[in-house]
Amino acid sequence: MKAAQLHEFHRPLQIEDVPDPQVSAPFDVIVRVGAAGLCRTDLHIWEGQFDDAQKESGLALPYSPGHENAGWVEAVGEAVTNVRVGDKVILHPLITCGLCRACRDGDDVHCDKNVFPGLFAPGGFAEMIKTGARSVIKLDDSLEPTDVAPLADAGLTAYHAIKKALPLLHPGSTCVVIGAGGLGHIGIQCLRAMSATTIVVLDSNADALALAQGWGADHTVLVDGNQVEQVKVLTGGQGVHVVLDFVGEGGAQEWGVDLLRNKGFFFVIGYGGVLAVPTMRMILTEISFIGNLVGSYNDLVELMALAAAGRVVLHSTTYPLADVNTAMDDLIAGRLHGRGILVP
Amino acid sequence: MKAAQLHEFHRPLQIEDVPDPQVSAPFDVIVRVGAAGLCRTDLHIWEGQFDDAQKESGLALPYSPGHENAGWVEAVGEAVTNVRVGDKVILHPLITCGLCRACRDGDDVHCDKNVFPGLFAPGGFAEMIKTGARSVIKLDDSLEPTDVAPLADAGLTAYHAIKKALPLLHPGSTCVVIGAGGLGHIGIQCLRAMSATTIVVLDSNADALALAQGWGADHTVLVDGNQVEQVKVLTGGQGVHVVLDFVGEGGAQEWGVDLLRNKGFFFVIGYGGVLAVPTMRMILTEISFIGNLVGSYNDLVELMALAAAGRVVLHSTTYPLADVNTAMDDLIAGRLHGRGILVP
Amino acid sequence: MKAAQLHEFHRPLQIEDVPDPQVSAPFDVIVRVGAAGLCRTDLHIWEGQFDDAQKESGLALPYSPGHENAGWVEAVGEAVTNVRVGDKVILHPLITCGLCRACRDGDDVHCDKNVFPGLFAPGGFAEMIKTGARSVIKLDDSLEPTDVAPLADAGLTAYHAIKKALPLLHPGSTCVVIGAGGLGHIGIQCLRAMSATTIVVLDSNADALALAQGWGADHTVLVDGNQVEQVKVLTGGQGVHVVLDFVGEGGAQEWGVDLLRNKGFFFVIGYGGVLAVPTMRMILTEISFIGNLVGSYNDLVELMALAAAGRVVLHSTTYPLADVNTAMDDLIAGRLHGRGILVP
Amino acid sequence: MKAAQLHEFHRPLQIEDVPDPQVSAPFDVIVRVGAAGLCRTDLHIWEGQFDDAQKESGLALPYSPGHENAGWVEAVGEAVTNVRVGDKVILHPLITCGLCRACRDGDDVHCDKNVFPGLFAPGGFAEMIKTGARSVIKLDDSLEPTDVAPLADAGLTAYHAIKKALPLLHPGSTCVVIGAGGLGHIGIQCLRAMSATTIVVLDSNADALALAQGWGADHTVLVDGNQVEQVKVLTGGQGVHVVLDFVGEGGAQEWGVDLLRNKGFFFVIGYGGVLAVPTMRMILTEISFIGNLVGSYNDLVELMALAAAGRVVLHSTTYPLADVNTAMDDLIAGRLHGRGILVP
Repeated sequence: MKAAQLHEFHRPLQIEDVPDPQVSAPFDVIVRVGAAGLCRTDLHIWEGQFDDAQKESGLALPYSPGHENAGWVEAVGEAVTNVRVGDKVILHPLITCGLCRACRDGDDVHCDKNVFPGLFAPGGFAEMIKTGARSVIKLDDSLEPTDVAPLADAGLTAYHAIKKALPLLHPGSTCVVIGAGGLGHIGIQCLRAMSATTIVVLDSNADALALAQGWGADHTVLVDGNQVEQVKVLTGGQGVHVVLDFVGEGGAQEWGVDLLRNKGFFFVIGYGGVLAVPTMRMILTEISFIGNLVGSYNDLVELMALAAAGRVVLHSTTYPLADVNTAMDDLIAGRLHGRGILVP
Repeated sequence: MKAAQLHEFHRPLQIEDVPDPQVSAPFDVIVRVGAAGLCRTDLHIWEGQFDDAQKESGLALPYSPGHENAGWVEAVGEAVTNVRVGDKVILHPLITCGLCRACRDGDDVHCDKNVFPGLFAPGGFAEMIKTGARSVIKLDDSLEPTDVAPLADAGLTAYHAIKKALPLLHPGSTCVVIGAGGLGHIGIQCLRAMSATTIVVLDSNADALALAQGWGADHTVLVDGNQVEQVKVLTGGQGVHVVLDFVGEGGAQEWGVDLLRNKGFFFVIGYGGVLAVPTMRMILTEISFIGNLVGSYNDLVELMALAAAGRVVLHSTTYPLADVNTAMDDLIAGRLHGRGILVP
Repeated sequence: MKAAQLHEFHRPLQIEDVPDPQVSAPFDVIVRVGAAGLCRTDLHIWEGQFDDAQKESGLALPYSPGHENAGWVEAVGEAVTNVRVGDKVILHPLITCGLCRACRDGDDVHCDKNVFPGLFAPGGFAEMIKTGARSVIKLDDSLEPTDVAPLADAGLTAYHAIKKALPLLHPGSTCVVIGAGGLGHIGIQCLRAMSATTIVVLDSNADALALAQGWGADHTVLVDGNQVEQVKVLTGGQGVHVVLDFVGEGGAQEWGVDLLRNKGFFFVIGYGGVLAVPTMRMILTEISFIGNLVGSYNDLVELMALAAAGRVVLHSTTYPLADVNTAMDDLIAGRLHGRGILVP
Repeated sequence: MKAAQLHEFHRPLQIEDVPDPQVSAPFDVIVRVGAAGLCRTDLHIWEGQFDDAQKESGLALPYSPGHENAGWVEAVGEAVTNVRVGDKVILHPLITCGLCRACRDGDDVHCDKNVFPGLFAPGGFAEMIKTGARSVIKLDDSLEPTDVAPLADAGLTAYHAIKKALPLLHPGSTCVVIGAGGLGHIGIQCLRAMSATTIVVLDSNADALALAQGWGADHTVLVDGNQVEQVKVLTGGQGVHVVLDFVGEGGAQEWGVDLLRNKGFFFVIGYGGVLAVPTMRMILTEISFIGNLVGSYNDLVELMALAAAGRVVLHSTTYPLADVNTAMDDLIAGRLHGRGILVP
């Protein structure tokens, strides 16, 4: 099959012929890729930030990145009963064991033996990808792979954090979203669909804020140095119940904390910076900080229900797989609007 | 002041002059009534169904019913700090003590010493009513007493049940609402505002079903004897995650149970019939039955936030207080569209 | 292998040679039975109460009952990674798929494709039994199959109900246990280990009540017609927060409801009778009724942790497998103290 | 009355005559102090660390510290119905309004208008103290003020954190307690009474660890630089589900984080240091940090139920009020074993 292979860090990927993936275990599923999302993590891979971790996991270059995949089932192992050849599916980013406590508790992402195609195994920047029966979700007839692929990881991360925050978001509460980009724009739509909280979106880009209103924001605030003050005014001086920080660096994880009211919760979703808070402050105000990884398989099933109902719509730009390097250049240069999607 | 007084069961109420209520304790609040909802419970009172309970509580005829009230603060006791004379307020239906475990746990409705004006103390079918500081909620500028009075009890009951059900209603789940009447129409709007569940509304009245679609129903099913079968078809034979039964009599509490899937929850909100289920069935399918009373003070605060945001809109008909008997006749005869509201 | 086979309802089981079970699918696990609990359900099977259900599921006589099993792994399918030949294990009563939403949510007992050995497939009244990788839990070194086999179903049912009840059982609350028998005696120990609630045990057998105090009961009350009054006295007239009904028939499901305080929860665990409650009562007191099935795989892992720590100890009597009919006679005649265990 | 007054920071308190507190509002309660706990916060007050905050709140020296109080009701305001003169009571540390959302949600500690006697109003190092009806809890006959006073704040803080952690502490889980001192020794007993988690206690003092075993610890680990490694060994390399950090300074808030397993929760209870965690780490391991303030009134009711049942026993040393400066010297010098209690 054709695949976009990374041979060397910081160098263009090469489109070349590689062997088709094969069914070798009872629960294996081979999927013909219909769409593969391009994620900022793919840039970090390309820069070699995951070199050590990849070597440790046994992955050697060249290989194909791509961890946000959707397509059609091409072949299945003998024990697979939940999908058939030809089924249209989205792929949960992890292959999981189904036997450990985490898998049996709805927390597949903490599976003791998880495999992460695209990062530590061959990914979806190719015509086919190998995954497992526990990772495929049939798509509603109304959805195509290009409609949903980036929901497999970026969208799923946003959904997961919001689902954890929902019990805190009663009508009359206020929820700040920091960052109206790739994850944030899905997050805002999920919040609107599942709660009546007052949504306040903060971003340093005025265009993103304008879009945010269409996605369901009640208020938008430009990050210009006065954003903390403005949120205080919006909340009568009290601060907000929940901050969803989709940025996690560049200071957001500092001034973001100042937005909280007493007993507020700060959800760390974006990353890069260091969270530093005096324990005295955590105690006097009883604030908490919640880490968030990507969501579970069932979370992705639920996000697909939102997508099928038209309650979550992805903002994206499509490229042929052969243009993968163009797509990456556009992402680096900030020219890529919405999430980038590669189509083999 | 003028008041509509019940002198004798089954006889018209009389509009007459009675002494104004007076502040006699530190937390007393006197409210000038702007709107008083007319509830089916008022008919039951008028029929004498609460005669024994009222006598036991020390209430003697004549008195004014009316337990869904909103208006303006007229006078306050010395210890009242949360409202001032002139404030526009809605009244939680109960006066509560603030000292018992229930009050201190957010469950004021189970207050050990609660007083229920309109049922066991003078109510809101009058120009003024006496309540307590713990029962008044300031209204948003955009809302008037006639917009919200019936939300104080009927709406609050619906809201409370739905809030309890929310953790069960993930995207992809199905929730049946039985009864699209006074409580149901608020319930459907609350469900839509706070969840992305698939809402299926069942009613024996086709007109009510047509309205339900405007309130947010995804599907409507006429109760004609085939309703169980139709819901099974809508859910791929599985049944639904939650049934909210706003009827509770006339068989709904029987066939309603047949709508549940394994691990389903049945919320009893309407009343009148007997729930009868073999324990064997409860075990094999692990289904549960949840009783529901009116909501707490904080629940009403949250419902007012939904109303202020325009997410819950009341369907009502207004009468002058002097026409209270006409309003009751209309309610009995089924001529009253939406909730009836009396305006002194 | 030797097996105790049921050839005809109401007739003694026969010990005879049958073919050994074989690994035929990737996740199959064959276990050499070390102990098989004898349950009242086995009597119901023997009486033919499950005849129709068994025929429907494709099971034909003769076959071996036995759904509470522990022993040593004898053989495993190619995909099994969580146990090895020789491992000492207890068996969750169901074989589950690992692919459906329930399995992925920690609710394996509601698996869409579950198989129930002992009821709808060959069970553990035999030298070997076939189960699946998702059903075996390694035992702590300190525990032997005869220490724990009945915890696989009877104990697990009690544990599951109590785990659901725990959030209601704060210090200062009161929890009634109706029935201090096979399930109840495990339930009382689980309650004591996991909560500081005041435990009140009700039984019609004074000997059982005496034992209950050793298991952790704070109070015991003889079921003699005055039990409701006595519980009211113990709770200052308020009633209790939770009733765990391990009987579910003979009136317990009627007078048991009278024990509840406002907002109380009644857990249906035993079965046989009909639960009948006016919806008016459910609303005025806001009481709820919770159905309970056997627990999940993770629940059984947790119960084994309690057993390994000595916090839950089984009260049992052991018989050689060849004496299965004696054991059943003893169970019928009420001569069997604690749970009966068959040892092949 | 006699009172120990702080006239100047860093100088001995003076025992002198001051006017008795008087009932001046409907819900006021005057309590004759039977026991007042001495807390490390009292040292911080004495050092002037709260000088600015006290001035801001309107408190001027001289005044009496003391925020862990128990005694007998001496006088009550006109609206007080929950206690009578002569009742034996413990005092929740805050006086709360009963009207704000927090008060009505079971979170009195976040009351918008709370008053904190001992810190921002006259405290319990005196013969009498003024509090409110919403702050007094009747003691069980079996308990005396000197048995419980320090539970009013130190114990209540420990209880509150543990109650929040309980849903994470299933049988088979592991919970680390850092610090077996004033708060920790109550925390360990609460954990043991309310859960079957494996309790691992870490302290730098071997004597404290020996005591911890008597309070319910399953394992103890000396903080000697190898503690992280030892906990890893105890948990099979996985780390623990919950860390309760009663120290919060001196590095505990750094190495304590290394004890967590994936999805672990770190409860910040002690304070002084800065919590600093890379957001990348919070995401990859999905760990969370939970701030904790003192518990609610209902929490204190529950803790008193544990004390009355003998499940929580305080380790303390008693001094006459006149020896307050000796007690403070002993606390500073580390000579005070258990919590110090002043008896007027």
